[in-house]
Amino acid sequence: MSTPSAESEIRVPSNPEADAAFLADFTTMSAFGATAAGGVERQAATDEDIANRRWLAEWLIDRGFTVAYDRVGNMFGLYEFAPGRPYVLAGSHMDSQPRGGKYDGAYGVLAAAHSLDRLRRYYDTHPEAVVNNIAVVNWFNEEGSRFKPSMQGSGVFTGKISLTVALETEDSAGVTVFEALSAANMLGEHDVFDSGEHVNDDDLLPIASYAEMHIEQGRELDKAGMIMGIVDSTWGANKYELSVLGHQAHTGATAIADRQDALYGAAQVVVGLRELADSYGDDLHTSCGQLTVIPNSPVVVAREVEMHMDLRSPDDAILEEADAKLNRLFAEIEVRADVKIEKRFAHTWKGHTYTPEGVSLSTKVIEDLGVSHMHVRTRAGHDSTNMKDIVPTVMLFIPSVDGVSHAENEFTHDDDMIVGVDVLTETLARMVEGAL
Amino acid sequence: MSTPSAESEIRVPSNPEADAAFLADFTTMSAFGATAAGGVERQAATDEDIANRRWLAEWLIDRGFTVAYDRVGNMFGLYEFAPGRPYVLAGSHMDSQPRGGKYDGAYGVLAAAHSLDRLRRYYDTHPEAVVNNIAVVNWFNEEGSRFKPSMQGSGVFTGKISLTVALETEDSAGVTVFEALSAANMLGEHDVFDSGEHVNDDDLLPIASYAEMHIEQGRELDKAGMIMGIVDSTWGANKYELSVLGHQAHTGATAIADRQDALYGAAQVVVGLRELADSYGDDLHTSCGQLTVIPNSPVVVAREVEMHMDLRSPDDAILEEADAKLNRLFAEIEVRADVKIEKRFAHTWKGHTYTPEGVSLSTKVIEDLGVSHMHVRTRAGHDSTNMKDIVPTVMLFIPSVDGVSHAENEFTHDDDMIVGVDVLTETLARMVEGAL
Repeated sequence: MSTPSAESEIRVPSNPEADAAFLADFTTMSAFGATAAGGVERQAATDEDIANRRWLAEWLIDRGFTVAYDRVGNMFGLYEFAPGRPYVLAGSHMDSQPRGGKYDGAYGVLAAAHSLDRLRRYYDTHPEAVVNNIAVVNWFNEEGSRFKPSMQGSGVFTGKISLTVALETEDSAGVTVFEALSAANMLGEHDVFDSGEHVNDDDLLPIASYAEMHIEQGRELDKAGMIMGIVDSTWGANKYELSVLGHQAHTGATAIADRQDALYGAAQVVVGLRELADSYGDDLHTSCGQLTVIPNSPVVVAREVEMHMDLRSPDDAILEEADAKLNRLFAEIEVRADVKIEKRFAHTWKGHTYTPEGVSLSTKVIEDLGVSHMHVRTRAGHDSTNMKDIVPTVMLFIPSVDGVSHAENEFTHDDDMIVGVDVLTETLARMVEGAL
Repeated sequence: MSTPSAESEIRVPSNPEADAAFLADFTTMSAFGATAAGGVERQAATDEDIANRRWLAEWLIDRGFTVAYDRVGNMFGLYEFAPGRPYVLAGSHMDSQPRGGKYDGAYGVLAAAHSLDRLRRYYDTHPEAVVNNIAVVNWFNEEGSRFKPSMQGSGVFTGKISLTVALETEDSAGVTVFEALSAANMLGEHDVFDSGEHVNDDDLLPIASYAEMHIEQGRELDKAGMIMGIVDSTWGANKYELSVLGHQAHTGATAIADRQDALYGAAQVVVGLRELADSYGDDLHTSCGQLTVIPNSPVVVAREVEMHMDLRSPDDAILEEADAKLNRLFAEIEVRADVKIEKRFAHTWKGHTYTPEGVSLSTKVIEDLGVSHMHVRTRAGHDSTNMKDIVPTVMLFIPSVDGVSHAENEFTHDDDMIVGVDVLTETLARMVEGAL
């Protein structure tokens, strides 16, 4: 274990060569699935995602890491300083939304890879300080656009999603997660880490802690002019699947009074959902991003609409109250539009605090490095939202200009990315030496 | 020309054998693309539609008709009593909506085929009464679900839609009308009839008149307990394509105030459209049956929504006024949802009366046959909506139980179908003898 005084020394200071190498690699990686408008389209286990993963695997192997995949396609780059010691994991996800941004997730994986590679070189010559081994992680399918739900790889890893259910999940063309990952040869026969789901399996590696760096995907840091956000808590979320059931009819010939128009019902849900958010100010976010009309013909009154919607709040009591209000709203819409609304919980998580010792550790590192910082709460889910429930976890943000995310014009300054890598490197160094 | 007294004699009276043959053929035809719930799915130029067309072609050839296709795949069964005489056309369409009903269109084609086959046998032995030749017609793509717009085959035939544009129309998989019809060998190199679009082409056949029988797709006849509806006018329609343009963003992380949510804008359009209809009582129908969200991911605020919508009214002035109100509504929504709305006319037709002589002729026939009847206005578009603008036209309805249409539970009683065939047969007989 390191002494308190030693923790204030910077182990692996920034250097221009390392910074240039990081930016060059980020440019290389952003070419996988690059879109004309400057974003990326690299949905989980598509050709673009697989090519990017292959590139990362080579990068890791070239630097002495061992690459392994678990049974849901999470990808690990392992480096062992001392046999039998637990592992510090660091990473994020490389998959993207359709026409998404190039920073979301991908930045965090590359930052972890560069940070841990710098630590590899440092601790190979300072073995006396080492307490834990290290592993880069690229979580499978964080985005949940091709295969639902989001945070699937870390969800299975942390026991929140069934492995079998995840592998059988189909995309819109009927391809399963199992098929897509098997075809790429990126599905392990065994797991790699003991995440608490396994009993007495000596082959599985123990985990010490987890760290993740991500762009903020909001405008708090950008507005405040701060570089580092230390995530101290998450918003809770309720995600729902809705079916609005009406009756198919001719748009021209059917009198308005006779219609059971599923799309009219669904439209009232979308409008009511926004009004619900407006009634809570900034304490509730509501969204509907996916809505599919059946049969979706110009001259047919829709018989069914399938929707995904979510409620997010920093306050679990508000989520509960809003859920009850939704039920009343749906009952009103059922009468007004003469439709049936079926509501199912798709995925839900309570608001939670992040590991307080992780917040303290990263705050100390950021202060030692003299970087501007503030505490933030994350509205979006991240793989760390899952990981913090099983191991001590650090979650850090760098700014997104104008808060743009899940869009091709998502943008973060190179300088901020570089500072983020330095902060992550130093935080991970202290985690390797036994902090957390 | 026939004398008035002769017009009151029934040429080809109903007989049990003909009725049974009709119902048997209707059952056979309804098997093409039959769905488990009792409907059909036979969208234009799909395998099911093509198989049904092949069946009809054989049926016609077996009875001495000549089968021909024009340059947009309209299908004709020609029978010539006397060279050089114009043709009486009768028919409808055999394509269906996705999971549509088995009566819509298909009944009218089969009724025309049986009626004209009965007339063929009658006039082959009564040549002295013949003024016109006869042709069954099965219009291509009346429904407009696979290839837009609706009434495409009759639209090209009557010069309202460009042949080139129609042939280049793509379905959602990128297959064109030209490709789909060519693959089935159902695209003629030349046209068959002179519909007024051609100048001095001696090979094209002249047209005398047109008759169409269809289910009502509304509940006027069913409510009134009448068997025959004599269509005296159409509702006008404005069909629009809309693009609602927002900005893609993360549903979790993006503050509500920062969103430019295309789906929120589109939902307000759908709700506003219904409110517009409600404000006019029965004088205005509004519908949105097709709405496509881009990118349609659960955690992404939609950047774009593509919609098809229509306004229909018996009163052209109301259509014009409603169009102006829509423009104001869209301007309000653009502000409220921070989106852009682009509105394009996709297709439009004015309210029009049907040929008054056609109304008189069919009324006289129905009275001679002693069948209950009333005048009706059609809200739906039909191929006759196009045909009535170029030749004298008769349009007749039989009841739809509960007004159901464009749905698998569309239903018309066998007895009503039989009466419809008798009325059509007698109406066409008088048209063959020169009425209209």
